[in-house]
Amino acid sequence: MTGQHPVTVIGLGSMGTALAEAFVDAGHPTTVWNRTAAKAAPLVARGALHARTMNKAITASPLVITCLTSYEDTIDAMGPAAAALEGRALVALNSGSPAAARNMAEWAHGHGARYLDGAVKNVPSAVGAKDTLLYYGGDESVFTEFESTLRVLGGDTVHLGAEVDLAALYEMAVGSTLLPALVGFFQGAAAMQARGLTAASMVRYSAKWFEMISAILPGFAEEIDSGDYGKAASSVNLFHSSIAQDEEFAKEANLDTAWHKPFHDLLERAVEAGHGNHSISALTEVLKSRTA
Amino acid sequence: MTGQHPVTVIGLGSMGTALAEAFVDAGHPTTVWNRTAAKAAPLVARGALHARTMNKAITASPLVITCLTSYEDTIDAMGPAAAALEGRALVALNSGSPAAARNMAEWAHGHGARYLDGAVKNVPSAVGAKDTLLYYGGDESVFTEFESTLRVLGGDTVHLGAEVDLAALYEMAVGSTLLPALVGFFQGAAAMQARGLTAASMVRYSAKWFEMISAILPGFAEEIDSGDYGKAASSVNLFHSSIAQDEEFAKEANLDTAWHKPFHDLLERAVEAGHGNHSISALTEVLKSRTA
Ligand SMILES: NC(=O)c1ccc[n+]([C@@H]2O[C@H](COP(=O)([O-])OP(=O)(O)OC[C@H]3O[C@@H](n4cnc5c(N)ncnc54)[C@H](OP(=O)(O)O)[C@@H]3O)[C@@H](O)[C@H]2O)c1
Ligand SMILES: NC(=O)c1ccc[n+]([C@@H]2O[C@H](COP(=O)([O-])OP(=O)(O)OC[C@H]3O[C@@H](n4cnc5c(N)ncnc54)[C@H](OP(=O)(O)O)[C@@H]3O)[C@@H](O)[C@H]2O)c1
Repeated sequence: MTGQHPVTVIGLGSMGTALAEAFVDAGHPTTVWNRTAAKAAPLVARGALHARTMNKAITASPLVITCLTSYEDTIDAMGPAAAALEGRALVALNSGSPAAARNMAEWAHGHGARYLDGAVKNVPSAVGAKDTLLYYGGDESVFTEFESTLRVLGGDTVHLGAEVDLAALYEMAVGSTLLPALVGFFQGAAAMQARGLTAASMVRYSAKWFEMISAILPGFAEEIDSGDYGKAASSVNLFHSSIAQDEEFAKEANLDTAWHKPFHDLLERAVEAGHGNHSISALTEVLKSRTA
Repeated sequence: MTGQHPVTVIGLGSMGTALAEAFVDAGHPTTVWNRTAAKAAPLVARGALHARTMNKAITASPLVITCLTSYEDTIDAMGPAAAALEGRALVALNSGSPAAARNMAEWAHGHGARYLDGAVKNVPSAVGAKDTLLYYGGDESVFTEFESTLRVLGGDTVHLGAEVDLAALYEMAVGSTLLPALVGFFQGAAAMQARGLTAASMVRYSAKWFEMISAILPGFAEEIDSGDYGKAASSVNLFHSSIAQDEEFAKEANLDTAWHKPFHDLLERAVEAGHGNHSISALTEVLKSRTA
């Protein structure tokens, strides 16, 4: 197919396999490599080329995409063939910290590669869909040159800026809410069960709740960016006044409430700092004043 | 208007006012009462009747809806005129704990009222909209008899069951995730600012994140209800292995990470209990084994 750039995908775990499938299906000449070679077989059956060595994998395409577990694993795996990176565009799509992304970029640049760092903000089965989000940070020339190829992986493909750790930074900033949000949901589920009800029965209400939270985020962001917390739709005091009720609720279900304590401390400190009548988003200021 | 039942709304704060407006606009003969009487004026201008005494407010309609700050305030405010409740249907729409809802029901029954307890799962400006959710628990005969009137307040109107504290229970179970989810978002926002970026720039990604969380809740609920955590899309180990990265991220932005600790403890305890390769939803079991 004319105009379809060759691409190499290194790392064929759940995510790497989904990436390679998307390229093959879009008609890109796709070369694949995986440490456990057997994982390449289904992709070869689909039309991919299997590189037996890392060196062949890298030299097969001007655009090399990696999706191993971590940056460290990527550097380990590519190390012996790193010289082949000279003059190529390298794009890493694994998860990791901003610091590790910066380290990866330095390593890639040291071997003469142009480097773009990215993150897939979705599950493997969503790769290729129109509203699947992938964001990138780093070398803009790589993004511009290969944008149409990268867009095969998801219709919502964004370049965040020239700094190589931006995708990792956004990923971690946005992801900060995942574990606490889930534990909150699990507490609710456990409380349902303590009453002989199912967790399933609360799911549609929880989904509405997350929709509502999403709807209020722009307002919170505005307060945080302006530092003006004065027009509170939901005040610190409102949350502060429900502390006892939260405790009572979890204790009635005989649940472990140890994780409530630091949140209540944040509320206390916010009240002490004069944020009582301010928006709950003023907790951002309390988080910034690190005590430990 | 034929078939539009008379209704009384007691308590004209932000929410009570929105409720009364919806009834007036739908053509229900609407009587209102508020401690601070001046707040009734705009509603009277819109077509409501203003009851000057609590007794008149209660006797004006077979259906009496309250929306004061708390159950305790409601009992305080209605107390002197409680005898008038005999034979009427009382519906309280304030927030509160399951225990306080049970207490309210007992009080109402003691005065000969039929009692339905409810919660508005949205903001005042959403009252009356097609997808606005209100859920109720308690006397089903009240719900059935007045369902068309209650439905004026929101198209998504649900009777959860005969137990009077069900709305409060679901509200608290579902709401358990609010504060932790927000603090996670605020941490992300603070990390953005530490890099000279805006909180606003992460909002659309956070919204996608909450959409994704919503999409995985049914799977988690199934695991929790069946107790089978074996087919992990996201394992405890996956979260456990990113503890150091979470810490590093927040410390790079110089943020208070005290609230991370109990979450990390939960992950540790889950691993110790043999849940490492299980789904992250297995944290529900750890929450159930209260230590404090
Ligand atoms: N799965 C998701 O839902 C998802 C979503 C967003 C982002 N991600 C990120 O994408 C990355 C990959 O995830 P995944 O789900 O595809 O993981 P996975 O299924 O566990 O696959 C890991 C891949 O990395 C390879 N690998 C690991 N260490 C290696 C080493 N030292 N040398 C050579 N190869 C090595 C594995 O090779 P072998 O096959 O030989 O073991 C395998 O191809 C991770 O950073 C993950 O956080 C995943
Ligand atoms: N606003 C929301 O977004 C929202 C959303 C869902 C649920 N809710 C729940 O709805 C309920 C009301 O909220 P709101 O936002 O309308 O609150 P609000 O604006 O603060 O209004 C409180 C109302 O309660 C009355 N009140 C309080 N204590 C009283 C007492 N001892 N005697 C007589 N009247 C008393 C107030 O009368 P005065 O005017 O005389 O002070 C006022 O009418 C709360 O339980 C809240 O949690 C609110």
